[in-house]
Amino acid sequence: MKLITYLENGKEKVGALTADEKAVRPLPFADMLAAVEAGLEAVKAAPQGPAAPLEGVKLLAPIPRPRQDVICLGVNYASHAKEAKWFSSDHSEKPVPIYFSKRVNEAVAPGGTIPRHGDVTKELDYEAELALIIGRTAKNVPLERAAEHIFGYTVLNDVSARDVQHAHQQWYFGKSLDGFTPMGPCIVTADEIPFPPALDITSFVNGERRQSSNTQLLITGLGDIIAELSSGMTLLPGTIITTGTPSGVGLGFDPPRYLKSGDKVECAIEGIGVLCNTVE
Amino acid sequence: MKLITYLENGKEKVGALTADEKAVRPLPFADMLAAVEAGLEAVKAAPQGPAAPLEGVKLLAPIPRPRQDVICLGVNYASHAKEAKWFSSDHSEKPVPIYFSKRVNEAVAPGGTIPRHGDVTKELDYEAELALIIGRTAKNVPLERAAEHIFGYTVLNDVSARDVQHAHQQWYFGKSLDGFTPMGPCIVTADEIPFPPALDITSFVNGERRQSSNTQLLITGLGDIIAELSSGMTLLPGTIITTGTPSGVGLGFDPPRYLKSGDKVECAIEGIGVLCNTVE
Repeated sequence: MKLITYLENGKEKVGALTADEKAVRPLPFADMLAAVEAGLEAVKAAPQGPAAPLEGVKLLAPIPRPRQDVICLGVNYASHAKEAKWFSSDHSEKPVPIYFSKRVNEAVAPGGTIPRHGDVTKELDYEAELALIIGRTAKNVPLERAAEHIFGYTVLNDVSARDVQHAHQQWYFGKSLDGFTPMGPCIVTADEIPFPPALDITSFVNGERRQSSNTQLLITGLGDIIAELSSGMTLLPGTIITTGTPSGVGLGFDPPRYLKSGDKVECAIEGIGVLCNTVE
Repeated sequence: MKLITYLENGKEKVGALTADEKAVRPLPFADMLAAVEAGLEAVKAAPQGPAAPLEGVKLLAPIPRPRQDVICLGVNYASHAKEAKWFSSDHSEKPVPIYFSKRVNEAVAPGGTIPRHGDVTKELDYEAELALIIGRTAKNVPLERAAEHIFGYTVLNDVSARDVQHAHQQWYFGKSLDGFTPMGPCIVTADEIPFPPALDITSFVNGERRQSSNTQLLITGLGDIIAELSSGMTLLPGTIITTGTPSGVGLGFDPPRYLKSGDKVECAIEGIGVLCNTVE
């Protein structure tokens, strides 16, 4: 099932895409967080309204206003670790995962604008990532039961101000500027993607391929992330965890290729869709 | 005005302490976040119910369920920077502030228990801090108008698992374990504390004084914090920003003096009150 949040006649709705993905059928939930809390079975069983053509509605981020900050993984593909000079490529031990968070007052919609923040940063960068949405309260979850706690998946662009990120040592501020979390176009429910996901992930800037990898190459996989975090933190339904980005970000080029006004950034994950945004 | 959140006959209420601080008068807000959103003037003008003795109610954290993660300052007193070996005490330039966040599903009440998390950490530590609550949407706020955006102040214990904090490089996980945010006992409204606050801040473990400083010794002051963060992030009403801790944490001793089961931790700020919690 592919779920979207959209505006129809100015009203925010949650719906399911039809099989041809050309129309949406509304679902009886106040918003996507309410659907997540109702649970996957309830969403699948819910009565669907009449199909409306996608052309006539405005897509929003699937979770436009996350309830807590998004939990992020840093340096979680070996290829990106190398370009970010985080550790040498022949590092023999599995590194300890790096967790940080980013604040999202309002996630940027598919097709929406990424603010330039020219007064604050000269080094605006993109990061295509697979994000998961927790569906059931997760506390002390063993590895083999981690998958049961996932409601679904989406594409997230972990937009970053590299100069701000690094100047402040902890990455929070440089990751949390307004409009730094484009998300979408949809949530694919977990039952549609074999676990762990092995999905091609790519990004393009102005049509030029920049990132190309597969989500099976994550250093710390989804199960380990949920098991480790839930050993100390209770993860509530609706929690968004974004799992890190492969090589090919602007920072990784010599010289770096940061985003500039008018750039079109596409982040794509096989089976989920393409998240396309333009820099202000 | 000193505002508290409390349980009376199992019902969560918001109220104002009476002048002698022995009783509470209920206020007509659903919770403290609703009071913050109504604004200081509305809270001051609101009709108050009949006084009930404090002895008969159960105190909760003033904001029991923060809407977003708490924004934290790291290494923001020179004395603590020295003990944490962050930079030498003769560092001549003002360091760039370190921002990170901590997740709080449920803030620990005054008198409540700090979970031990013995399976996850061997290095449980305390940090007495002055926290501010944003009262008005803050976006591109100039320094001289920062104070207007503060609703009030409380005491926050930024409980930390030092081994987890440092192993993962970014501090988020080691700061975000369940029960790591005791807060209270009250919010003192901003109109009662001259800006910037110059308040004695202390902590005690089992009655022994560990931390003792004054909030005027912050490296990055409250106005600068709000001005800088709001230059890129919109801070919504109800946002909690905790401003860092002075020297004297367990990590700072040689050998370190981490918390153990049964330890009683008191964090006190002049004019706000004492936040007392016991380690599980």
